Amino acid sequence: MLGPNSYGKSGIRLVQVARRGDRHDVQDLTLSVRLEGEFGAAHVAGDNAAILPTDTMKNTVYALAAGRAPGPIEIFARDLARHFVATHAPVSLARVEIAERPWERLETGGRPHGSAFRRPGGETRLASATHGRGGEEMIEAGVDDLVILKTSRSAFAGFARDRFTTLRDTNDRLLATALRAVWSYAEADAAFSALRAGIRQTLLDTFAEHDSRSVQHTLYAMGEAVLERHAEAREIRLTMPNKHHLPVDLAPFGLPNENAVFVATEEPFGLIEAVVRRPEAPPGRS
Amino acid sequence: MLGPNSYGKSGIRLVQVARRGDRHDVQDLTLSVRLEGEFGAAHVAGDNAAILPTDTMKNTVYALAAGRAPGPIEIFARDLARHFVATHAPVSLARVEIAERPWERLETGGRPHGSAFRRPGGETRLASATHGRGGEEMIEAGVDDLVILKTSRSAFAGFARDRFTTLRDTNDRLLATALRAVWSYAEADAAFSALRAGIRQTLLDTFAEHDSRSVQHTLYAMGEAVLERHAEAREIRLTMPNKHHLPVDLAPFGLPNENAVFVATEEPFGLIEAVVRRPEAPPGRS
Amino acid sequence: MLGPNSYGKSGIRLVQVARRGDRHDVQDLTLSVRLEGEFGAAHVAGDNAAILPTDTMKNTVYALAAGRAPGPIEIFARDLARHFVATHAPVSLARVEIAERPWERLETGGRPHGSAFRRPGGETRLASATHGRGGEEMIEAGVDDLVILKTSRSAFAGFARDRFTTLRDTNDRLLATALRAVWSYAEADAAFSALRAGIRQTLLDTFAEHDSRSVQHTLYAMGEAVLERHAEAREIRLTMPNKHHLPVDLAPFGLPNENAVFVATEEPFGLIEAVVRRPEAPPGRS
Amino acid sequence: MLGPNSYGKSGIRLVQVARRGDRHDVQDLTLSVRLEGEFGAAHVAGDNAAILPTDTMKNTVYALAAGRAPGPIEIFARDLARHFVATHAPVSLARVEIAERPWERLETGGRPHGSAFRRPGGETRLASATHGRGGEEMIEAGVDDLVILKTSRSAFAGFARDRFTTLRDTNDRLLATALRAVWSYAEADAAFSALRAGIRQTLLDTFAEHDSRSVQHTLYAMGEAVLERHAEAREIRLTMPNKHHLPVDLAPFGLPNENAVFVATEEPFGLIEAVVRRPEAPPGRS
Repeated sequence: MLGPNSYGKSGIRLVQVARRGDRHDVQDLTLSVRLEGEFGAAHVAGDNAAILPTDTMKNTVYALAAGRAPGPIEIFARDLARHFVATHAPVSLARVEIAERPWERLETGGRPHGSAFRRPGGETRLASATHGRGGEEMIEAGVDDLVILKTSRSAFAGFARDRFTTLRDTNDRLLATALRAVWSYAEADAAFSALRAGIRQTLLDTFAEHDSRSVQHTLYAMGEAVLERHAEAREIRLTMPNKHHLPVDLAPFGLPNENAVFVATEEPFGLIEAVVRRPEAPPGRS
Repeated sequence: MLGPNSYGKSGIRLVQVARRGDRHDVQDLTLSVRLEGEFGAAHVAGDNAAILPTDTMKNTVYALAAGRAPGPIEIFARDLARHFVATHAPVSLARVEIAERPWERLETGGRPHGSAFRRPGGETRLASATHGRGGEEMIEAGVDDLVILKTSRSAFAGFARDRFTTLRDTNDRLLATALRAVWSYAEADAAFSALRAGIRQTLLDTFAEHDSRSVQHTLYAMGEAVLERHAEAREIRLTMPNKHHLPVDLAPFGLPNENAVFVATEEPFGLIEAVVRRPEAPPGRS
Repeated sequence: MLGPNSYGKSGIRLVQVARRGDRHDVQDLTLSVRLEGEFGAAHVAGDNAAILPTDTMKNTVYALAAGRAPGPIEIFARDLARHFVATHAPVSLARVEIAERPWERLETGGRPHGSAFRRPGGETRLASATHGRGGEEMIEAGVDDLVILKTSRSAFAGFARDRFTTLRDTNDRLLATALRAVWSYAEADAAFSALRAGIRQTLLDTFAEHDSRSVQHTLYAMGEAVLERHAEAREIRLTMPNKHHLPVDLAPFGLPNENAVFVATEEPFGLIEAVVRRPEAPPGRS
Repeated sequence: MLGPNSYGKSGIRLVQVARRGDRHDVQDLTLSVRLEGEFGAAHVAGDNAAILPTDTMKNTVYALAAGRAPGPIEIFARDLARHFVATHAPVSLARVEIAERPWERLETGGRPHGSAFRRPGGETRLASATHGRGGEEMIEAGVDDLVILKTSRSAFAGFARDRFTTLRDTNDRLLATALRAVWSYAEADAAFSALRAGIRQTLLDTFAEHDSRSVQHTLYAMGEAVLERHAEAREIRLTMPNKHHLPVDLAPFGLPNENAVFVATEEPFGLIEAVVRRPEAPPGRS
């Protein structure tokens, strides 16, 4: 028996340029489209009549991009999700996810250049829209791979111990993570770009200023601050891998290590994840 | 308000060697442990009393490994999940995931060598166990990155079209995917290694022999065959990216391309996903 | 002043299918083309008259593929390199590199299937050809990412020590590497496929059987064995990262670790590299 | 017969923190050490007496880090290279390579934070030092993965054509690359940090302002500008993959594409590489 199923296109790479005289803008997106609906006959009987090809999804992204200027990815995701529900009857739910890699203007002669850019790498902006046939809609936004580190005000002590515990209490450790944060909006239209910038800044401010007793402690403070300061955010999910930085033991060489020399490790890593939501919020999909 | 949350350790790398005289066995695992439970105070108040360090989870994996011989990863996952629930009161649910990378014996002088091995790369074996405080337990197993290709008996035609559709019907295309299949078991103990081998073979047999009208069609046939032939499997989730192989247009060079020369592309890719389950199966977590 | 320079196309992905009735063959190649020659005017004056577009290099690979059956990549690399020198006057030297990812037939009903395949992943086959305008030519072949491990007959002791040395002698360690070996041929035509299989087996046999006192020791033995047993190979370069497997200290848990439980680490890693050549060999480009 | 050989340690991960009251500095390095010398006996006879363990190289990096403040990586590379030649008699040449990933201070309350940082990702800073027993020394510096794009003043026309050429002349294309540039210094001591910043800016200025007729044309202009404006740089090697952005054909949908909608591709890619040097420069190792 066929259970939950979906299909779509991932890894659609779109770079869009807007030109106003000598001043150009660039937007660099990677999109995925996923559809749920009446696709049972394709699975069970090999009848493709309800299947819109994933190649068409890709074409649709490019065609709809041609009709818009670079702008908030939340809007583009929403419009694409609405399109697939509106134009294709078997679809019960469309989900569009967009990851944006920012490009910055090069500075030449001390001024931002009009048409030359640098991509810093790392951090991406996320947005997704889910649109159902009944009109229900959810817009989410987020950041991914926001790599941050603090060298003060981070402790981890007083934890549970058992016979396999060798870790010692510490009151001064490096705390580093590659933050993924995804929040949902109550409304399908808003000043998404300003909100994104504000929420990102709140996350960073809180990370920097918090007296951290654990990753969980700081994660929750970050989520709480976002909900307190940004009424438009309904709930937020934070994922924080603990990118361990271990002090190197220099004692064998007769040297002190005054919390100064660390080895950064990739594996294994802690992984801390939580949703913070408003008391009244219904369970969401973030 | 704190919503769903969990924490754990990922990327725990374990290589285990068993030696019986000149004949050695090697098992190469990457594990993750994730706990849910009464961790609110850590988040909200910075009180770590209920937090077993993720470093201890790592130590536990190595310590429990020392007490076992290399064997089915389903069992090791299950025993680890049980351990964390049994030994740490705040835990309401423990989930352990294991990925195994197989090593094969080198052949020297036409015979398998006793202590030299090759890792083929690619395909990994998956297992996971979820154990709740009330005793509920789920064992899953799977394969990931099983890259397969068929050069016959694959069509895609008769699909829905709209104004953005440019794809043409084809009755003879390459069908390639990197299969991920995860199935759940009804019982917490079984001949897991033999079952895994059998289910994997069923997946491959069906993929090879199926007259495919779409990825969905073949995916469903594969899932259905597993449930038909392997009573122990309760349901199965298949994820099949469509790794497109596009025929190269050689017409500009005055050359025919008789379905022989393809460019393999990474982006974009189709992504097809479905659960196939027995009619009576309650909804699972696969 | 313009110094050494070259240009070309990399990452050309070609999958080729040959069909004889129900029995198909598949070859999966990634190619790069690089040209040296009279390209100064393009650099200095922006005059492109001598520049064959890299897009044309890609087209050429597909067009020449159409005229051949799947076969030894050494031959395909050679013919492509010859082509660019023969057809484009400014070229003084062409170098073509090919990496082949093998596909194996699926076994169904105990027999190899005619048109369904699995790609094991990991190990790739390498070939390259360099062809100069004066007719000089060099063919190289190799393997890359051949991940091998031995659990016996590997020691590392009696090494140099200084005040920063903490490593202890060991007479029984795991030895693991991801071998890259590239050898050159004296002739531009040979039974390349049989030679490749033979040399690969010699490398594996020697790795398995050698009483290793260090990575260097085993590396040299492997290279020496290839030159002794395969007269066609002129010289060989071996690159062997030392993929460290460190015994886990279980003493804190009151457990012994009888050389059985290891953590596999990615970083840092040793890197050992050497060329082994016949006494009479002139310096080559391997 | 043993030909050229070397060994060393790669992937040594060092994060160093310097603290002056509330203001901390962070430096994040990945180092590799490679030694050449009298290591024949280890290869041929398994005699390790001349082999300093790669584990000791790692220890040395951490121990010497403890005695320095974060500073120019050119100096740290040089001092490490000198150390291995000075302390270990069999070494004839030591090469140390360092890649630095920059961390930026977070801005909170409109001001740079004292102890919280963000790693932008992407671009890395390179330095290497090669020190020989005879005292000869070479210092190199560079940037890697500097991803840049220009949306104006980039053409590619008037190129050579043959029967496999389908590319058309264009006078307005996107030009994008992930620049790797490595330059060598004439002196072993200099204001390396200021020089690096200046050379990087010259590379970016030239890329932005150049009327590009090809990648080669712009690459050469960038190298020439560096040598003209920075007397300390002896020569420079530039590697510029051509990260193709292809205009999407929207004609099938009745839409124009006025150089606005592009698909960014990863494979295949052009690869352009050249050394630019001063007329008097002797051949170097860049």
